[in-house]
Amino acid sequence: MMQFTAAQLAPLIEATIEGNPEMAVQSFGKIEEATPGQLSFLANSKYEEYLYTTKASIVILSHSFVLRYPVSATLLRVKDAYSAFASLLDMYQQLEQASLQGIQQPSYVSPNASVGENVYIGAFAYVGENVRIGKNSKVHPHCFIGNNVQIGENTVLHSGVKIYHQCQVGSQVIIHAGTVIGSDGFGFAPQTDGRLQKVPQIGNVIIEDEVEIGANTTIDRATIGSTLIRKGVKLDNLIQIAHNVEVGNSTVIAAQAGISGSTKIGKGVMIGGQAGIVGHIQLEDGAKVNAQSGVSKSIPKGKAVTGTPAYDYSQALRSQALSRQLPDLERRIKELESIIKDLISTK
Amino acid sequence: MMQFTAAQLAPLIEATIEGNPEMAVQSFGKIEEATPGQLSFLANSKYEEYLYTTKASIVILSHSFVLRYPVSATLLRVKDAYSAFASLLDMYQQLEQASLQGIQQPSYVSPNASVGENVYIGAFAYVGENVRIGKNSKVHPHCFIGNNVQIGENTVLHSGVKIYHQCQVGSQVIIHAGTVIGSDGFGFAPQTDGRLQKVPQIGNVIIEDEVEIGANTTIDRATIGSTLIRKGVKLDNLIQIAHNVEVGNSTVIAAQAGISGSTKIGKGVMIGGQAGIVGHIQLEDGAKVNAQSGVSKSIPKGKAVTGTPAYDYSQALRSQALSRQLPDLERRIKELESIIKDLISTK
Amino acid sequence: MMQFTAAQLAPLIEATIEGNPEMAVQSFGKIEEATPGQLSFLANSKYEEYLYTTKASIVILSHSFVLRYPVSATLLRVKDAYSAFASLLDMYQQLEQASLQGIQQPSYVSPNASVGENVYIGAFAYVGENVRIGKNSKVHPHCFIGNNVQIGENTVLHSGVKIYHQCQVGSQVIIHAGTVIGSDGFGFAPQTDGRLQKVPQIGNVIIEDEVEIGANTTIDRATIGSTLIRKGVKLDNLIQIAHNVEVGNSTVIAAQAGISGSTKIGKGVMIGGQAGIVGHIQLEDGAKVNAQSGVSKSIPKGKAVTGTPAYDYSQALRSQALSRQLPDLERRIKELESIIKDLISTK
Repeated sequence: MMQFTAAQLAPLIEATIEGNPEMAVQSFGKIEEATPGQLSFLANSKYEEYLYTTKASIVILSHSFVLRYPVSATLLRVKDAYSAFASLLDMYQQLEQASLQGIQQPSYVSPNASVGENVYIGAFAYVGENVRIGKNSKVHPHCFIGNNVQIGENTVLHSGVKIYHQCQVGSQVIIHAGTVIGSDGFGFAPQTDGRLQKVPQIGNVIIEDEVEIGANTTIDRATIGSTLIRKGVKLDNLIQIAHNVEVGNSTVIAAQAGISGSTKIGKGVMIGGQAGIVGHIQLEDGAKVNAQSGVSKSIPKGKAVTGTPAYDYSQALRSQALSRQLPDLERRIKELESIIKDLISTK
Repeated sequence: MMQFTAAQLAPLIEATIEGNPEMAVQSFGKIEEATPGQLSFLANSKYEEYLYTTKASIVILSHSFVLRYPVSATLLRVKDAYSAFASLLDMYQQLEQASLQGIQQPSYVSPNASVGENVYIGAFAYVGENVRIGKNSKVHPHCFIGNNVQIGENTVLHSGVKIYHQCQVGSQVIIHAGTVIGSDGFGFAPQTDGRLQKVPQIGNVIIEDEVEIGANTTIDRATIGSTLIRKGVKLDNLIQIAHNVEVGNSTVIAAQAGISGSTKIGKGVMIGGQAGIVGHIQLEDGAKVNAQSGVSKSIPKGKAVTGTPAYDYSQALRSQALSRQLPDLERRIKELESIIKDLISTK
Repeated sequence: MMQFTAAQLAPLIEATIEGNPEMAVQSFGKIEEATPGQLSFLANSKYEEYLYTTKASIVILSHSFVLRYPVSATLLRVKDAYSAFASLLDMYQQLEQASLQGIQQPSYVSPNASVGENVYIGAFAYVGENVRIGKNSKVHPHCFIGNNVQIGENTVLHSGVKIYHQCQVGSQVIIHAGTVIGSDGFGFAPQTDGRLQKVPQIGNVIIEDEVEIGANTTIDRATIGSTLIRKGVKLDNLIQIAHNVEVGNSTVIAAQAGISGSTKIGKGVMIGGQAGIVGHIQLEDGAKVNAQSGVSKSIPKGKAVTGTPAYDYSQALRSQALSRQLPDLERRIKELESIIKDLISTK
């Protein structure tokens, strides 16, 4: 349990103190429910009444707020009470994450794994042979880290992340619960008798620094070589990245999108939710793919597409609008046909 | 191992007993494979021969079935043998679930977690600090329950459910294997140098009573405040619910649908499989979204939509039908052009 | 740690040996980074320089490659260095998988579970009551195997696979990490007061031999009876298979596709990524469904479909192409209208 005084908190949020600077708090609470030892805030004047009755030890309040009654809590006066509170809460959670360390029992750490300083390995985590985990990284409960996996520094693997053998994860990476890295790519060679022979998937996945990956996403290992997730890429939940795909720096992919095998995605690309990209094509830097689009051809630099099959964004919107007017277009054709018929018959 | 006599079972399925009312069974079996101590049924006369040779101790049979030979099993005569058997099987599984209790070892339960009566905590489950679990709830193996999570009564978390810190789950809730509750929302602020700065996600997820959630679904925590799943909501497998979404009472969402951030969904809404809903819109009570639709605008009360982008269901069906006839429409336009050309030239 | 000599490796890849046939290796490395005791290869002449300085003990090289300097490593000369190396790596990984055996601690194996010869049960795996696991099968860490589940021989369950009670998995099956087998089907009966009453799901899932299933896929148990995945089926990642579905022999389904309840899929069917199939229809043998299609009607034998709603592949492509030309079609209609107007007025 960490404890902070008003005097310690004030500089973090550029606050001025009204009351006892030595007043200390250990946790957060809503102003109407807070107990002694808690930090709270008042942003909405609708809740003003609670300010005068709250049991919170410290309350964050805006400079402009004028007290109508005496207040027992120590006040931290700031420009924006809400964002100051949120910012403290965030710092607190980061501190909490940073304070996690040590190897919780029971867990399984192979005797020849190498684990850096201040690393946390949660209960029921499995760390295989020759694994290397850099300093300050946090491996939450139920993670599986296969043989020969390398993990950088300050990386966080949330509960139940599964990383198959030989894969590499960089530093400052965050991977959310249930995500699978390095499962076999989907490759089968049809035999003459109709059976499907598995094509061995002997590559790996490399995830560079500062990548964040959402929950229950899957990234398959390469057939040979590496599936590559470049620096600063952000992937949402439930995304499928197939074998031998490469995703370029700072590209953002929204939930439930799928990228088929061997496709190369450039830098700063944006892919909307539930979009699908076929295999073996290239999305050049800055390309934009609208949600639910089905991309079947390469996209040049900076170009935006939508639809299935996807093409130029503005043209596609125009065609989509017209397709809603199809009943009207058909009616107009019918009218023309009828007029023409009359014209011809009366000719 | 629970054991039931014919006399105990009969009132549960409104059966009359033929044979020994003290005959007891402990498990279920198919009539052709059953062993002594098992309960079986005959619904399909195709299997009648097995009735006379079965080793089952009790057989459920319809009132109308006329025996042609003597039967050694005790008979429970009912109106519909199949549904009586299914109903007993269901009661049995509920009893089995209810009979699970105690803390299986090895598991990890924080010393300051509070666990109610008759709670089951399976092997390899992780229960964090200040967690509260209400009576009769069942936490199956490999579940992760983060710090300060609250779980109500009679709730079942199947194997491998992950619930991040601070989230709340109500009573009579069922969550299936692999589902993730409370992962970070997908929010990043682009910096001038192209890097993407993570926006802290400091809210939580609140799941109210009587909700059921399928397998490998993901529900992100709110940026600030709560992602809300209201009472009686039913979510299928592999669904994505983004941060700050609200899903209203008794709404049903089918598999692989995705709801983007801050969208509000009313009561009794029905969303088909693989549908996608953009962020920051509202689906009013009773709205209906067809499977695979892409909803980009708010939907008024009770209205049905389909297509991508989705609009009025009946109109969209008419346009979809016409879009199949586009080759024919184009041919008709060509014919008109050719006739007009002739008309003008002969004029 | 396994060790192999050049003489042992040569026949596996039809190689001839240049150098010491007793030279031994225990692992693999890139030619520019390899250390003594490692096996490497040179396929791309761009890296030729490393051949003369490498510390690898054995290097695989093509017959046609002409040395320009002396080489310290023992050489294995083959037709294609790259595929020979890949083939050895694959054999090695299969050996490694096969060499896994024994029950790693801590794990939970019910005293009345039956476990065959050479079975591996990883740390934190849970094996329930009356489970039967056939010989040589590998249950990786964090797997959950519910009561009465049966698993065949030579089957591999990767980390975190969850198999609910009563389900059956055949032999030579591979299931990737995070996949859930046997979760409840999605069935609710609306009550007069708007509440949704759960329909008990008391069937199971049966997975036949030689099936491979990707990561984080979900297969629901049948309401009554069995959800069936037939012999040789290959399912990719993040797929949804609903209750009572049947998937026929050697059918292939790509990532993120979804099959709704009670649909029957024949043999040798191919379903593209993100496709959705409604419930209660039939896809006959050899049907082909394009990626992202929405199939709402049964498909006859061998027929290919695309689009949402899906219909004949070639016709749909023609209509899709024309829908892009809708602005042009509308312009042509406008022109016709204007000409007709002139014709009539000048008449």
